[in-house]
Amino acid sequence: MADRTYGDIPGFPAGTTFVNRAALTASKVHRPLQGGICGGIDGAESIVVSGGYVDDEDYGDELVYTGQGGNDPATKRQVADQELTRGNAGLARSQLDGRPVRVIRGAGGDPKYSPASGLRYDGQFRVVDHWHETGKDGFRIWRFRLVTLDGADLPPLPSGVAGPAERVATVVQRLIRSTKVAVGVKLTHDFTCQVCGLRLMTPAGPYAEAAHIRALGRPHDGPDVPSNVLCLCPNDHVRFDAGSIYVDATGVVRDSSSHAEIGPLRTSPAHTINPTQLAYHREHHVP
Amino acid sequence: MADRTYGDIPGFPAGTTFVNRAALTASKVHRPLQGGICGGIDGAESIVVSGGYVDDEDYGDELVYTGQGGNDPATKRQVADQELTRGNAGLARSQLDGRPVRVIRGAGGDPKYSPASGLRYDGQFRVVDHWHETGKDGFRIWRFRLVTLDGADLPPLPSGVAGPAERVATVVQRLIRSTKVAVGVKLTHDFTCQVCGLRLMTPAGPYAEAAHIRALGRPHDGPDVPSNVLCLCPNDHVRFDAGSIYVDATGVVRDSSSHAEIGPLRTSPAHTINPTQLAYHREHHVP
Repeated sequence: MADRTYGDIPGFPAGTTFVNRAALTASKVHRPLQGGICGGIDGAESIVVSGGYVDDEDYGDELVYTGQGGNDPATKRQVADQELTRGNAGLARSQLDGRPVRVIRGAGGDPKYSPASGLRYDGQFRVVDHWHETGKDGFRIWRFRLVTLDGADLPPLPSGVAGPAERVATVVQRLIRSTKVAVGVKLTHDFTCQVCGLRLMTPAGPYAEAAHIRALGRPHDGPDVPSNVLCLCPNDHVRFDAGSIYVDATGVVRDSSSHAEIGPLRTSPAHTINPTQLAYHREHHVP
Repeated sequence: MADRTYGDIPGFPAGTTFVNRAALTASKVHRPLQGGICGGIDGAESIVVSGGYVDDEDYGDELVYTGQGGNDPATKRQVADQELTRGNAGLARSQLDGRPVRVIRGAGGDPKYSPASGLRYDGQFRVVDHWHETGKDGFRIWRFRLVTLDGADLPPLPSGVAGPAERVATVVQRLIRSTKVAVGVKLTHDFTCQVCGLRLMTPAGPYAEAAHIRALGRPHDGPDVPSNVLCLCPNDHVRFDAGSIYVDATGVVRDSSSHAEIGPLRTSPAHTINPTQLAYHREHHVP
């Protein structure tokens, strides 16, 4: 495993500017001289957002970042499919582990959020989603949604783990949201997993999670309606979101790597599922 | 199931004051005329914090609230054990579902955060933990930690689910934190669950969660060290935190309701577990 450093680099707080990539490399805030992602199969520690990919989107405290590979540096166009390897695998790994990723913006990026010249370290972000799609140039690209860890987005640290120093090391790995729609779907299925049939019992009653089939939020913008929600146990929720399993067009749950049948999706007459959302999940989250 | 209303009541925003319990009941912000918890087995919608229990703790944006039952209203002392039933079960249920709980403070509570007279609706909180302990009067009490949903504690809503109206309905059900220590323990066990042996695979690699045996934060204040952490699959993490399973003094994982053996806790020579923390978990999280 590479000798990685996650989180802030002492002496280079968010806002630090660098005249060029050589200065950035020297600081170790982003070590590669050329690559946009510093990472590998064990995780990604930093990315540079500099307008190198036509599919990147910058919203300031949130980024939709295109993975690496298949890109012609001369034209900035995609000329081949991207794979979930190297830095792309690293960003996906950092999502699974809940590790912070340093984000550096360069002058070539979106002028609204990028420095006028050189590069600027813009603090720690976390990877909250990754998926693939067909980019503007017609090839498969991997995309990563990152949101800032600075400012008001992180729930308060538990008492006893206070202070900015700890903040660097304490990141949200997984966050399950609850909506009225979500609770309704869980009640319909009586907290029984639609994939494996488990009804996870606790002393306070059964527990399940609601999985949005097409994710809420940018850029998927799935709707918060029952037909876009599955009632799952936590393990199958992780598997579904990560693309380990999918529901095929006939309603059978399958393993993504072997496409072997796991079993029929358990359904209820009181809960209609929209097949278009299941197709969206297959097309974007299954490798 | 009771006809419950979760979240803000239209016309009575946070900060609304009430001259007495009758006025509070009329508003439906807290419906019972006397009880501290409005809730049952299906969930809890509101609580009143008014100094009725000697074990309550108020930190403003965070509360440690004592459940109901076993209390002598004349002396405010505990005279019997509390059970995980009625309103207590409701608060635990609302934690599992990620439902918001309205918090009303009365003049009898901690003067630092309570109104000088009457009652005040202080907005929506979420239940983040519940456990039992021996209270100051020597009887079992159930305790609930609640943190405010107002202000800076909630991660931003996904784009497309914006606005205060949706905020009411969108609550964090479960939040898995990652720390350097946590990631280290997971690597030691190669992401294999110490309870069931599952190594949950995703296209980006294996996934596991780190469970703090004695919880971080108030009032448990467990340490963030490897000897206080288990590597678990998400399902067993939920079971462990909820007290569905525990590790006995001989290192055997058992079901809390039947005390039947599930199997030995899987261990690694590179990961020493502190038996004191396992005892703490048994004493406070197993009903």
